[in-house]
Amino acid sequence: MNRADCERMDRDDPLAGFRDEFVLPADMIYFAGNSLGPPPRAAHDRALEVLDREWGEGLVSSWNAAGWFDLPVNLGNRIAPLVGAAAGEVVVTDSTGIDLYKVVHAALAMRPDRRVIVMEGSNFPTDNYMIQGLIAALGRGHTIRFLEYPDLDRALDGSVAAVCVNHVHYRTGRIHDMAAVTRRAHEAGALAVWDLCHSAGVLPVDLEAALADFAVGCTYKYLNGGPGSPAFLFVARRHHGEARQPLTGWWGHARPFAFDRDYRPAAGIRQMLSGTQPILSLAVAAVGIEMVARAGVDRIRSKSVQLTTLFSELVSIRCGGYGLRVISPADAAQRGSQIAIEHANGYEIIQALASRGVVGDFRSPECMRFGLSPLFLRHVDVWDAVDRLLEVLSTDAWRDPRYAVRKTVT
Amino acid sequence: MNRADCERMDRDDPLAGFRDEFVLPADMIYFAGNSLGPPPRAAHDRALEVLDREWGEGLVSSWNAAGWFDLPVNLGNRIAPLVGAAAGEVVVTDSTGIDLYKVVHAALAMRPDRRVIVMEGSNFPTDNYMIQGLIAALGRGHTIRFLEYPDLDRALDGSVAAVCVNHVHYRTGRIHDMAAVTRRAHEAGALAVWDLCHSAGVLPVDLEAALADFAVGCTYKYLNGGPGSPAFLFVARRHHGEARQPLTGWWGHARPFAFDRDYRPAAGIRQMLSGTQPILSLAVAAVGIEMVARAGVDRIRSKSVQLTTLFSELVSIRCGGYGLRVISPADAAQRGSQIAIEHANGYEIIQALASRGVVGDFRSPECMRFGLSPLFLRHVDVWDAVDRLLEVLSTDAWRDPRYAVRKTVT
Repeated sequence: MNRADCERMDRDDPLAGFRDEFVLPADMIYFAGNSLGPPPRAAHDRALEVLDREWGEGLVSSWNAAGWFDLPVNLGNRIAPLVGAAAGEVVVTDSTGIDLYKVVHAALAMRPDRRVIVMEGSNFPTDNYMIQGLIAALGRGHTIRFLEYPDLDRALDGSVAAVCVNHVHYRTGRIHDMAAVTRRAHEAGALAVWDLCHSAGVLPVDLEAALADFAVGCTYKYLNGGPGSPAFLFVARRHHGEARQPLTGWWGHARPFAFDRDYRPAAGIRQMLSGTQPILSLAVAAVGIEMVARAGVDRIRSKSVQLTTLFSELVSIRCGGYGLRVISPADAAQRGSQIAIEHANGYEIIQALASRGVVGDFRSPECMRFGLSPLFLRHVDVWDAVDRLLEVLSTDAWRDPRYAVRKTVT
Repeated sequence: MNRADCERMDRDDPLAGFRDEFVLPADMIYFAGNSLGPPPRAAHDRALEVLDREWGEGLVSSWNAAGWFDLPVNLGNRIAPLVGAAAGEVVVTDSTGIDLYKVVHAALAMRPDRRVIVMEGSNFPTDNYMIQGLIAALGRGHTIRFLEYPDLDRALDGSVAAVCVNHVHYRTGRIHDMAAVTRRAHEAGALAVWDLCHSAGVLPVDLEAALADFAVGCTYKYLNGGPGSPAFLFVARRHHGEARQPLTGWWGHARPFAFDRDYRPAAGIRQMLSGTQPILSLAVAAVGIEMVARAGVDRIRSKSVQLTTLFSELVSIRCGGYGLRVISPADAAQRGSQIAIEHANGYEIIQALASRGVVGDFRSPECMRFGLSPLFLRHVDVWDAVDRLLEVLSTDAWRDPRYAVRKTVT
């Protein structure tokens, strides 16, 4: 395996053309698409269309004429096929955390005699935080039972109202078996809530086949929606009507423009909406969603497996002996689209790589994450990145004191 | 009073220059700035700066380098002087409804032995809806006592936890006396929560002088932040530490980048944040906020009083005898920056006006609202609009059946 092999793989890549649809800085190899995807070129024009035409010319009439009011539902319908949901089961709105609050609230209300939520303590922490806030607000004695894979099974008993798990672990990239965990949750009488932040758009997700009850996910990682673009949430149709969320704003009202005094929930997924949405961010997110739909999640997954396999093999072969520990699963079938590597000086190594144009990210205390977004990364990028990693390690370049200066890291 | 008088007033207008800083369609007189303000010209460049430079070139590093992560607090600090708050008391985040949920939750927790929230049933309904959702979620027997101005006084007794009122009524434009209502709330041992959606940026607001406890408001009306741009919330500094909101996401964590398992609130106003914010919408909102700060709220208010007085007087003088009822207060001191007029065929009249380039809006069952945004409206606009209103009424133009076709109205 050498760089020429990588070039050949790129020539054979059916998704190769998508790279040109992104804005990417020259001389940068970007492995942080699992944190913030880069801008699709079309995002520029879409933003100007919203600003200059819809807002500037249409003004207030654009709530209807430009479809602004219906964007959460219409974008949800475009995400639905990417995650194995049907039209009318997904809506794009608010943030992942707030959406999680809504669906877990709904789940707990559907299991009023149960008081336990099972989560992984190592979840992306905001999931824990939101549910801690929720159960404190409810004040009904709910508790979180924190357990780590593979011990989730043992935690499921008749006291469990809901299991709330990240489909792909934000740190290790490990994939949970959605169908199996959901089935075990249901066998225990509990509901299954999935966080798809690290799987939507990059991994085949089949919420319906798994019989998942609820899900949330973000649009700014592998869906390339833009910084903080609104999140999505899923409620299985069989729960529509019964599932109720507490943030009951006018966008979720049965007759939002009647200006009734009292709240009455809309039918269907609209009931999960709350207040007026940030249209510019929401409209631009459509561009990235459309690209993923056009590329096809199955093709994206094939390339993702190739890239993560290549990355981890090259690291093992070329960078052995420097104290790196790949903590992502070795089996590609259990691995999302990232490679996580631990090293006691991971922070400094990530900084040294960044100064050489290789952008990954760092998660305390010592985890380096490399997200492999198949729509714009090439096999030669992986080769070149490992080249520079080897350089940083073999020359002790990471020991340069400027790389130890701590900045806030996202 | 004739059109030449209006032209003279426009020549003497110290704010006249601001009109050119907006994108406004030719031949449109826009009275819906109280619903959605028009784009400042600089919004275009700011959006492209975020898209092409910050997102496109900076990518994930922009969370720090471009100040994205601190935008909610930094924008809050820019809004603070516009509403009589201090730096560190305001944050821009999420939607008005969700922010209201947060602060009312905090208020109720600070009055644990009280179970009543006093509101006007005629509030903008989403305020009612959000609090109805909140008290249903809490399940502790809270009730809303709906009363209308001027009967709020009688409603305040030892059972009242919070009074939650719109500073300027969204329909009539009536201003509540913030200092007086807050004082009476405090005398009764209750907390005062203000919705500033229809006052922020157009009316002097002095939250600190009034000793207001909490407030929320939107940025897309008189602050011209763009469709659905994130809302702001205020927590008086004396309540920091005690006030706790339930949507406890990582942006409100004491150490958001430590990835601790358990939630621990940030000190100060940051604790009111939840999840990742829609940066494009948030960053663009800064433009309109800056313009209002530069124009000065006192100067804006002076012109607002001139415009609303002119509008209501011209309607009375020139359009008498057509069944119009101006429901906004006749006393300018009690009136926000809009004139509301009822008519049994208000819907058709608004449509007929719109087809003549005069854009107001309609609120069921028969309220026509004309928002007078002083940063871009001229006195001659008011003259010309009343001209066309007179034409629509005197020729029965509104009886054209196409104006009766009901569209969704925002």
